[in-house]
Formats: sequence, structure tokens, C-alpha cells
Amino acid sequence: MKRKSQSLDSLSLGHGKRVRLWRMLYAHGPGNGTLVVLPLDQGLEHGPTDFFPNPEALDTEFQFRLAVEGNYSAIALGIGLAEKYMKEYCGRVPLILKLNGKTNIADDAEAESPLAASVEDAARLGADAVGYTLYVGSPREAAGIRALSKVRQDCERLGMPLVMWAYPRGRAIDAKGGKGSLYAQDYAARVAEELGADVVKLHEPEGHNEKSPEPYGSLREPAVDRLRRVVRSAGRVLVLFSGGVKQDDDAAVLRKVALYMDAGATGVMFGRNMWLRSAEGALGLTREVHAIMSRHPR
Amino acid sequence: MKRKSQSLDSLSLGHGKRVRLWRMLYAHGPGNGTLVVLPLDQGLEHGPTDFFPNPEALDTEFQFRLAVEGNYSAIALGIGLAEKYMKEYCGRVPLILKLNGKTNIADDAEAESPLAASVEDAARLGADAVGYTLYVGSPREAAGIRALSKVRQDCERLGMPLVMWAYPRGRAIDAKGGKGSLYAQDYAARVAEELGADVVKLHEPEGHNEKSPEPYGSLREPAVDRLRRVVRSAGRVLVLFSGGVKQDDDAAVLRKVALYMDAGATGVMFGRNMWLRSAEGALGLTREVHAIMSRHPR
Amino acid sequence: MKRKSQSLDSLSLGHGKRVRLWRMLYAHGPGNGTLVVLPLDQGLEHGPTDFFPNPEALDTEFQFRLAVEGNYSAIALGIGLAEKYMKEYCGRVPLILKLNGKTNIADDAEAESPLAASVEDAARLGADAVGYTLYVGSPREAAGIRALSKVRQDCERLGMPLVMWAYPRGRAIDAKGGKGSLYAQDYAARVAEELGADVVKLHEPEGHNEKSPEPYGSLREPAVDRLRRVVRSAGRVLVLFSGGVKQDDDAAVLRKVALYMDAGATGVMFGRNMWLRSAEGALGLTREVHAIMSRHPR
Amino acid sequence: MKRKSQSLDSLSLGHGKRVRLWRMLYAHGPGNGTLVVLPLDQGLEHGPTDFFPNPEALDTEFQFRLAVEGNYSAIALGIGLAEKYMKEYCGRVPLILKLNGKTNIADDAEAESPLAASVEDAARLGADAVGYTLYVGSPREAAGIRALSKVRQDCERLGMPLVMWAYPRGRAIDAKGGKGSLYAQDYAARVAEELGADVVKLHEPEGHNEKSPEPYGSLREPAVDRLRRVVRSAGRVLVLFSGGVKQDDDAAVLRKVALYMDAGATGVMFGRNMWLRSAEGALGLTREVHAIMSRHPR
Amino acid sequence: MKRKSQSLDSLSLGHGKRVRLWRMLYAHGPGNGTLVVLPLDQGLEHGPTDFFPNPEALDTEFQFRLAVEGNYSAIALGIGLAEKYMKEYCGRVPLILKLNGKTNIADDAEAESPLAASVEDAARLGADAVGYTLYVGSPREAAGIRALSKVRQDCERLGMPLVMWAYPRGRAIDAKGGKGSLYAQDYAARVAEELGADVVKLHEPEGHNEKSPEPYGSLREPAVDRLRRVVRSAGRVLVLFSGGVKQDDDAAVLRKVALYMDAGATGVMFGRNMWLRSAEGALGLTREVHAIMSRHPR
Repeated sequence: MKRKSQSLDSLSLGHGKRVRLWRMLYAHGPGNGTLVVLPLDQGLEHGPTDFFPNPEALDTEFQFRLAVEGNYSAIALGIGLAEKYMKEYCGRVPLILKLNGKTNIADDAEAESPLAASVEDAARLGADAVGYTLYVGSPREAAGIRALSKVRQDCERLGMPLVMWAYPRGRAIDAKGGKGSLYAQDYAARVAEELGADVVKLHEPEGHNEKSPEPYGSLREPAVDRLRRVVRSAGRVLVLFSGGVKQDDDAAVLRKVALYMDAGATGVMFGRNMWLRSAEGALGLTREVHAIMSRHPR
Repeated sequence: MKRKSQSLDSLSLGHGKRVRLWRMLYAHGPGNGTLVVLPLDQGLEHGPTDFFPNPEALDTEFQFRLAVEGNYSAIALGIGLAEKYMKEYCGRVPLILKLNGKTNIADDAEAESPLAASVEDAARLGADAVGYTLYVGSPREAAGIRALSKVRQDCERLGMPLVMWAYPRGRAIDAKGGKGSLYAQDYAARVAEELGADVVKLHEPEGHNEKSPEPYGSLREPAVDRLRRVVRSAGRVLVLFSGGVKQDDDAAVLRKVALYMDAGATGVMFGRNMWLRSAEGALGLTREVHAIMSRHPR
Repeated sequence: MKRKSQSLDSLSLGHGKRVRLWRMLYAHGPGNGTLVVLPLDQGLEHGPTDFFPNPEALDTEFQFRLAVEGNYSAIALGIGLAEKYMKEYCGRVPLILKLNGKTNIADDAEAESPLAASVEDAARLGADAVGYTLYVGSPREAAGIRALSKVRQDCERLGMPLVMWAYPRGRAIDAKGGKGSLYAQDYAARVAEELGADVVKLHEPEGHNEKSPEPYGSLREPAVDRLRRVVRSAGRVLVLFSGGVKQDDDAAVLRKVALYMDAGATGVMFGRNMWLRSAEGALGLTREVHAIMSRHPR
Repeated sequence: MKRKSQSLDSLSLGHGKRVRLWRMLYAHGPGNGTLVVLPLDQGLEHGPTDFFPNPEALDTEFQFRLAVEGNYSAIALGIGLAEKYMKEYCGRVPLILKLNGKTNIADDAEAESPLAASVEDAARLGADAVGYTLYVGSPREAAGIRALSKVRQDCERLGMPLVMWAYPRGRAIDAKGGKGSLYAQDYAARVAEELGADVVKLHEPEGHNEKSPEPYGSLREPAVDRLRRVVRSAGRVLVLFSGGVKQDDDAAVLRKVALYMDAGATGVMFGRNMWLRSAEGALGLTREVHAIMSRHPR
Repeated sequence: MKRKSQSLDSLSLGHGKRVRLWRMLYAHGPGNGTLVVLPLDQGLEHGPTDFFPNPEALDTEFQFRLAVEGNYSAIALGIGLAEKYMKEYCGRVPLILKLNGKTNIADDAEAESPLAASVEDAARLGADAVGYTLYVGSPREAAGIRALSKVRQDCERLGMPLVMWAYPRGRAIDAKGGKGSLYAQDYAARVAEELGADVVKLHEPEGHNEKSPEPYGSLREPAVDRLRRVVRSAGRVLVLFSGGVKQDDDAAVLRKVALYMDAGATGVMFGRNMWLRSAEGALGLTREVHAIMSRHPR
């Protein structure tokens, strides 16, 4: 199997998608074909709870300043924040408009992420990509795939790259080892490719899990191999790994980034691990992430 | 974090939205950037029950006269009342057309508020804003977000400000401390910003609630701090607090208004606390609310 | 509170609605602003069962002849009967095209009335109004309100008056005293006004019902006061009371009509109490109803 | 009550519907205003099971040859068979395109018949009518009525007669005496008229059934009276009775046909009772059915 | 009954469908009217699990190279793989764009396959057919038929052949003998014809199954007769049989192919039995399959 594609040439993209992906891969961020994305959808997905460790981050200007000063490849957020804050920052950092979302008040047994914005909204706001969450394996998966189909077609029509948050969810996933299992993440990676994503956001797969279906249930592999497996399953889709909850140890965060890039990822999407730090701390850590990226040109 | 934005300049608004918001913030009501809104959707939401203490209020002319003579920033009501009563009062008080609603006959375990009117109805009737109720956290939240998405896009297209009634509801909210908890109101405030509201109507959050998820469950803050927290979570969305059920003690009502404004609210939306009083009593209380507003220019 | 509006001038109506309502209020029927409407939707709603006492009434010509010879303000029926029988009677009696309906084979715990025809069908058939059943309080209320919203907008566009059958239904209504309780009928009346009906069909509210929510549960009022309460809750919406099942005693029927008109109703919608009588009996009773109407000009 | 209408003049039909109905009533089949229709939707509704007694009938050419050589008024089948076989037979026998259908693999407790084709498909294929199954009384009745409403409007627009398979189904019907009861068939007949069918296909109602609601539960009538009752309830809608499962005794089949025509039916729709016979047997029986029809001009 | 039609002339096809089917039947693959199709939808339907025996197959180039070098009639895959890999292979192997799909994470009790792409996507990508999975007998069958109806109409409009994956599924099928039973496969074959497929993919029916409804429950037939029965039930629809899970014994695979062709199939759709072999092994086996096909011109 070939390595993850390293240039836009190997992807079959229309002009609009190519221009916009180029902007994120080469004009912003590390600029060498890798991606460092700052996500801010936690206010909808988890509520203000996530901001308690750093109340300054409740004001979206905090994240925008971080994204601009830290030279991120893109900032990813929903329609409400984009409408209210992009005016001051437009052109200075690419926008990934997250189209769907939900609260976490009800549990995830039948998780469904409704569209709160459209690809046309993204075009109107000058976004360089749209984000779409698919709850892979949820009892409401069918509704998610149907809505995705329309989003994908609009992306094709308007030249907008499609970033999929491929999130295993729902009671069947829970019964088969949970959303963090290698089984779940590996399946999600393939689903992203099968359904037409250009970029996929995944989580680092957990280790051995006996509840997972075979052959995963009896698989025992080191972390980097699990990551490589997931990257391979995503095929030609560019893979971003997520940082998850905040980790206070900077060195540990950086080890994770290096591990992801060693495994073939195109980049990272770290939110709370960045914007729950002080402005200075986050900028410092961001610089070190860029340094790792500079050693993994794509 | 900066204070709640005090002028239209700090908001990213298209021309139509700006003109209409300006009319409510500066041409009507206190006229200093604050809002005093008179809502009348209780006939649908609660039924005639709410009018028993003041049967005169069953005739919508009562509320319209109060809104005009009391110089309210706007009156908020549904399509049926708007169609039948606006003719006599048009131009004299701005209209917030409430687009969705439901009865309270069935319980709220799976609360959903269906659209009974459109943004185009609002434009046709000369409204200065639309109102939309989102039941945050309800098992039917996804349907509510999808419908909101279309409403928001129509607002963008027709230059209509979007006032969100961000109401936590449903069995999951009940299990986590209830709709009045700080957890619920704080989350609802953020949801309003994330999904693209221009103005949000919230309720004063209740005190300590052990059933709420952490960190809310162990939080102990005075009322004004809880209110400030919610205002902060709404970000650049203008916050209106609601009065809830009628309180007979005028002074207590006014203390609440002052508290809300001290906490950074843009205004209040008091219905039963106004129109369940006699015409004279309501006008007198309204004048005192205006006096408080004059001390909190935005 | 003012009395129920007595002329078209007090209603805010577009031209088409005004022309059509005028035809029913002044050109047909008693002609003094009251309404005597003959409904025939029981064949769908209850099945042929309802016709057993007078098999002649199974042939819709029976009702059409009664409506024409009895000088009714309108006949109300569904698309199938309208398509097949209007040709012979068009122009001789106004048509209220009933747009939605269902059988009573399944129970009403989750009652929903699907649209079987459109406002455009009504315009094509030369109807002077459309009828729409809303099951107030049903678990499917949201679907009913959504469909109503489209019907109301089409009525606005095509100048078609909207007659709402505001029917409390569903298991929550049953638990709160039932569809015939004052609580239920009073709420339904207000819902009709809130959602934009021009005319509402209601049932005479029953007496004291302890299962109803307060203050209704402890209310004890004579029949005429209960009726007045409901008429008041309907605001500017014209109220028709229904006759319900057949009553053999003519005098009792007429006492009901007089009572309804005394309470402020605009008219009556009596089906089985008319067309389950012989042709002669029904015409005689109709004449006496007209006589009562002549004493209550609106 | 008048007898079932005997000519097209008594029906209120647009030109297209009239032309097409005329073709079935007078240009094909017995030609005297009666209908002998050959249905072939059992392959979808029941599966290949139905063809076991006569495997030749699995090839749709068998039924087409029978329909043409037996001079049927029409053949009724779905989109797949129509697309594949009409080419050879077009113009030689009218087509009733059956628009909806389902398998019988799941039980009928919540029966619903989804649309598999459109009225436009029927027009494109040169059909002379469309067929639509409504599951009267099913928990999914509302969905069926909504889809029917669109079909009926398309029929009006494209001049296509609407033949309704009015089939009582679902757990509520089962609890009230079953789909074959007089209660169920009589209600279904009226529903067909109320919802705008031009022709209705019904089943012969069974005898006394104590589980049926009153007055049906205590009704005791001979077969011909039960049939007459159902024909009367269908009003101006032309009634076809179905033959149901195959009966080996030719004379018994013919007695049924005579009984149906005596009761006022417009014709019969016999499928398995025809095409499960040998080609010769079916043609012979068809000739005898035509002979009965010749004695019942409409 | 006639044999399965052997030429395009016997099918009633519009020009576009004819051109595209011709390409698969005569310009590619064996070229004698038979079909050898390589499917690759297992990544979505089963996840990466299926690729463990041959990790090279995770890279879709493996299957494309096999399809081109093995001279397949077509390759069948979903929108994501088609978009990303067709550029390099377009014109060298026909594409069947699989329009719908789902994961197997949740169980199949209520299986539903949502559309992830459209017939217009297929036309844009230069596909020669679309694939559509219908879960015959599932509680969600109605949704599947409705979506199929739109797909079929789009196929008619755009001249695109329709290949149906007719898959019995859901708890009712499980209760009646399971998806592999002759009852289930035979019914599915007929459904494909009834609903308008041009080609149907089926599985080899299993032997005697007492849980199946009569007459299947007591049927005892050799494999070739069961296959013939299914081919007959598909009528004029071209039948492809599937290979199912991988079988290591090449000779056994070839015996199956010969059996299918003897039974009247038009061809085979073998995925895992091909691409889980080494490239050389798969090419060798493919050549032997072609040899069998050469003995069964259609």
C-alpha cells in the first residue's frame, strides 16, 4: 500500500476544492502540506462546562486571536460564532464552517447531529471548508448519511472541501467496545472515505478491547500501529487526529502530535488542549506543534 | 472578557437587521440601547388559564394599548394575534412575530415547538424581528435545530433579527437539575450564540442544584453572579431576562429588573408581570422599569 | 372586553377573504351576519354508521338539497363529495372544503388528521372557505400545527377564509378531563385565534370536571357562562358551535341554538341533528333555527 | 337513494378522465359500461407463492395474453411489469398502473403501502388509470391519505382516473372484526368516495361478526344485501369486487359474479381465479363472466 | 415459460439504458452478453474487517487494477471511492455507482439503506449503471421503496440502468427462515422485477428450511433447481449471483459459477472471493470464470 498521498495532485479535486484546500495546506499553518486546526464547537457540543478552566476562552475573540497569532491552518466553528466574529478576522485565518451539531444534554444512545447551517452559508461567509459530523453506527445513522449526501453534493457544486467528523456513536457502538475502540475508529475512517470526505477528523484509537468484534477483539498492537491502521483505512482522505480533553503536560501533548504524524496523519485538530491554556501558553505550545509539523512535510 | 456589546457597531449585521434592531433599541422603548419587550404568547403556550387573574387581558387590545402607551420596545406575539390586531397599531410599536409554539396539554418530556408562521409572514406584516423557541436538550432538539436553520437563513435573506427563546426542556434536562438550573440556562445561552441568534430570551437561573452536572452541581454563587455567567455565555447575543409568573409586589419586580441590568442584560421581557396588572398598574410599573433602564444605557 | 365583532369591518381581512366571508354571512343563510352551516364529514370521520338512522342521507344529494332548500350559509364537506356533487349545486350554496380528515377505526390517543386536499383544490372548486381540523393537545399536535401553517399561508395567498375545527384530542386531554371539558374547549378556542383561524368550530363545553387543571377543576358556572367564556377566548375569531349527536326533541335543539347565540356565537354547525331527520323535518327545523338567528344580527 | 350511476354523464369528470374511463367501460371489455379487470400485483404483495399452482403465470406474458385474448377492460399491474411487457401489448388492453405496494413479509399491524411509481409514470406509459392502495384504519393511515392527496391532484392535472384499492388493515381493524367484515368493507367504500376515488376495489363483506362495532355487530343480512349496502356507501364511485383466493369450482365463481352485479357493482377484478387456471380454462371462464356482464349494462 | 432473455432486443429500454447496458454486456467483460462484476462496497457495509485477510485490498487501486486487468464487465462501488479513484481508470472499466449503503454496526432488525449519492452523481462521473439496495421485508421497507421510486425515475430520465441489490432483511425475514432461504431469495427476485430493476443481485438460495412459509417450508429441491426458480421469478430482469464470503478452494468457486450459469443467470458479482486473493490468484481465477462465461453466451 502506498503512503498517504502527499500532494494535492494525487487527489481528484475540482478547482474550487483545490484552491481552498491549497489555502489551508500551503498558504496558512505550517505551509508544508500539513494541517493544524483549531476547533471551537465545544460550546454547542458540551456547553459552557468546557470553558471553566479558562473563562477567557468563553469570548470567541480569544480563539480567533490564537488562531491568527498562532498561524493555524484553519479555525473550525459553527454558524453563530462565524457570523459574529469573522468580520474582524476574515482573510487572516481560513474558516471551516461546522454545519451540524447538538447538545450533550440527552445521551448518545440514538445520537443525531442536525444541520444548523448550509454549504451556501459557508460560501457566503468566505469559508475554506465545511465540517460535518456523522455519527457512525448510531440508530440514526441513516438520517445522518442522507443529510451528508446533500451536503456533499453542495460541496461539489460550490467547490467546498468536506471535512468529516467521523464519530462512532450510539448503543450498538457502546456494546461493541465503545467509540474510542480501534474497531470503531477504524470503521469510521473507512466510512469517511466511502462517503466522500476530503478530510476526516478521528480520535486516537484505544488499545486492546475484548468487546470489539473479531479480529479487533483479539488484536494487540502498539499505539503507532493502531494509528497507522486507521490512517490506511481512510485511504486518500487526509486524516486529522483530535486531542480530546485537556492534558496539562505539554511534553505529553507534543509526544502525541509526533506520534500522529509518524503514523501518517496530515495534521491535528486540538481545541481544549490549546485554548484552555493561557494565551501565552497556547501560543508557545502551538509553536512547538509547528516545529513537529516542519519535520513531516506532505 | 469584554462587557456585553453596547452598540450596533460591534455586531456584524446586514442592513435590514441593523435597521430593524435600531428601531427597537433606539426609536422605541427606553431608546438608549436597552429593550423592554411585552410578550403575549401565553394564550397558546399555557391556554386561557393565564388570563384568569385579569380577564380584560384576554382581549389583545389590552396588551397592544399597554405596549403603545407604555412605550415598549416591542410586542411579541404569534401570527393569529398579529394578523387580527396589528392593523390598528402598526407603526406605533414594533412587532416580534413569534414563529413557533405549542400547547402545554401534553407534558414536556419530548417537547417540540412547530413552526406556525414563517419569516416571510413576518416581513409581510412589517415585523421588526421574529421569535423562535428552541427546546434545548429535548429528545426533539434535532428537529428544532433543523427548523431553526431554515428560519435563520430566511432572516439573513430578509434582514430580520432573530430572537431566540432558548428554553431547556425534556426528560434529560429534568434529570440534570431542571429547566431553571444554572446549568440549563447557561448552556441555553451558549446555544443561542452558537446557532446564530441576535437576541436571546432566558430565565433567571436558580441557585445551587446538586442534580446538575459538575462543575455546576457544586457551584454556589449569588444571583447576580449567576446572571453574569449566563450573560457572558451568550457572548455577543443580546440577553433579555424573563419575568415568569406574576409577582404581586411591585418593588420585588423592580429589584429583579435592576439585578438583571446590573448583570449585563440588554433588557427584559415581562408578560404576566405586566398585563395581569390593571391597565394603570401596568403602566405605572412600566414607567419604573423605564427609569431603571435609563440608568443602564448600552 | 368588547362583544364579539359584529361586522366584517372589524376584521383585518384581505379582499378575497372578505368577499368570500361576506357571501356566507350576508348573501346566503340568514343574511344578517350569522352562520348556519351544514357539515357532512361524518362519512369519513365515523363511517357509514352515522347514516343508519336515515339511510337516505347516504346519498349526498340529500344534504345538498337540504342545504339549498334550507338556505344554509354553507355546506362543509371533503374533496371526494365536493368533486362529485358540486357540479349540480354550484353557486346555490357556498362550499367549505374540509381539507383534512381521518377514520375513527384506530383510537384517538395519538390523533392526527392528514391533509387530503389543498387550498388550491378549494379555489379550483369555487369554495368560499376551507376547513382544517387541529387536534389540540394530541401527541401529534406539532405535525398538525406545521400542516396548518402551510394551509394558512395558502389561504392568505388565495384569499380563502380558514375555518378551524379546533378539537382537543389525545391521551393528555383524556387525562385532564376529556375533550368536552370547559378546560379543553376554552383552550381550543384560544388556539384557534393564536394560530390564525377566521372562524372556529367548537363544542358546547361540559359542566364541572374535577380532572381538569385549576382553575377549571374547581369552576362551577352555568352553561351560558361557560359558552361566553369560550367565545371570549376565541377573541376576534367567529365561533360556531356544533350540535353533536342527534337529539330527537326539536325544542331541545332550538333551545341550544338560542343559548349559543345568547352567548355570543356567530352561528351553528349542525349535521346529524339536521340530516338524520326526514327532509321535511330537517327543513322545518332549519326554518326555526333561521328564526332564532334573525333575532341575533351580528 | 338512486341506483349506482349508469353512465359517464352522471359523473363530474374532466376530459382526460372521461376519455380514459370511456375506453375501459365501452371500448374494451364487455363494452356496456361494466368492467372486467385482470389484476397482477400479487407477485409484489404476496410473492412467488401465489404462482405455485400455475407456474406458467410467473411469466407476465401469460396474463397479458389472457387480458388481450379474453378482451378484458384493463390489466392492473405495477411499474416493473408495465415497463417490461407493455411494449408488446400497448393499445390492445388498457393499463391500470398500480402506483404503490409492499411485500407481506412483515405483518399488517401497521400496514403502509409506499409509492413505487407516479401518475406521471402512468401518463408516460399510456395508462388509462392509476391504482392506489389505501390501508383504511391502519396506524399509518395518515401517511396513506397524505400520499393519496398528491396522487389525486396529479390525476386531476393529468386527466387520469383513480382506482382505489380500499383495504381495511391494521391492528385496530383486527380488533373490530377484521378486514373482511361488513363494518370494515362498508367503511372502506365510503372512504373511497370521501377521498376522491373514481373507481373502488372492495372485497365481498363477510357475514355476521360480533366483534364489529354497532350497529354492524348485531346486523344479520344476506350476502346480496351486504353487497348492496357497500355499493350504496361508495356513492357515485364505481365498485369492483375482488375474487380473492382461487376457487376451483367454475360455477361458484360465476355465481359470485352474478351476485356482485345484482348488488349494483360495476364489475369485477379477478386475478388468481383467472390466471391460476390454464390458459384455456381462464379464457373459457372469462367468456362466461362476459356473458353475465352482458345482462347488466350500466 | 421462456428462458431468460438473451439479448437487449427483448428488453424495453430507452436509448441511454441500452447504450450503457450494451457497454457492460458486450464491450467489456466476457463480451457475450454475460456479466462479471467486481463489487467493492464491503468497506462501508462491513468495515475494514473484511480486508484483514488481504491488507493490500484496503487500497482501492488494488480492485481497480484487478477490474481493468481482469477485464471485468464493471466495478461497483460508492461515491467516495468513485470520486477519488475513477480519474485514473475512467473508460477502462464501466462503473456501477452504488447509491445507498450503511454500516453493520447496528443490527439488521430494522435495516434501512440511506441514499449517499444520486443518479445525477452517477451521470456526472460517467457511470454505466447505478446500484440500489432494497431491504425486502424490513420494517423500513416502505422508506426503501419510496427512495427507490425516485431513483428509478431519475434512471429513466438520465438513461441509467438500475441494478438492484435485492436483500431480504429484518426481523420478519429472520422469523420466516432467514435472508438466505429460498423463500426470501425467491420473493426478492420477484420484487426486483415488480419495482423496475434492470439487473438484480441475489444470493444463492439455501436448501430446505422448515421455518419458511408454505409451500417453501416443505420444498426439497437440488441447488440448481432452486437457482432456476429464483431466476424465473426475476422474469426479464438480468440476474447476478453473489459469491458471499471468501472460499479458499478455487475449484469450488468455479463449480458455483458454472452452476449459476447453468441455472440461467446472466452473470456473477464476486467481491471477496476475488480481491481477498493475491493479485495473481485473483487474475487467474477471473480468467477461469471468463472461460465458463464463454460457454454461456446470452
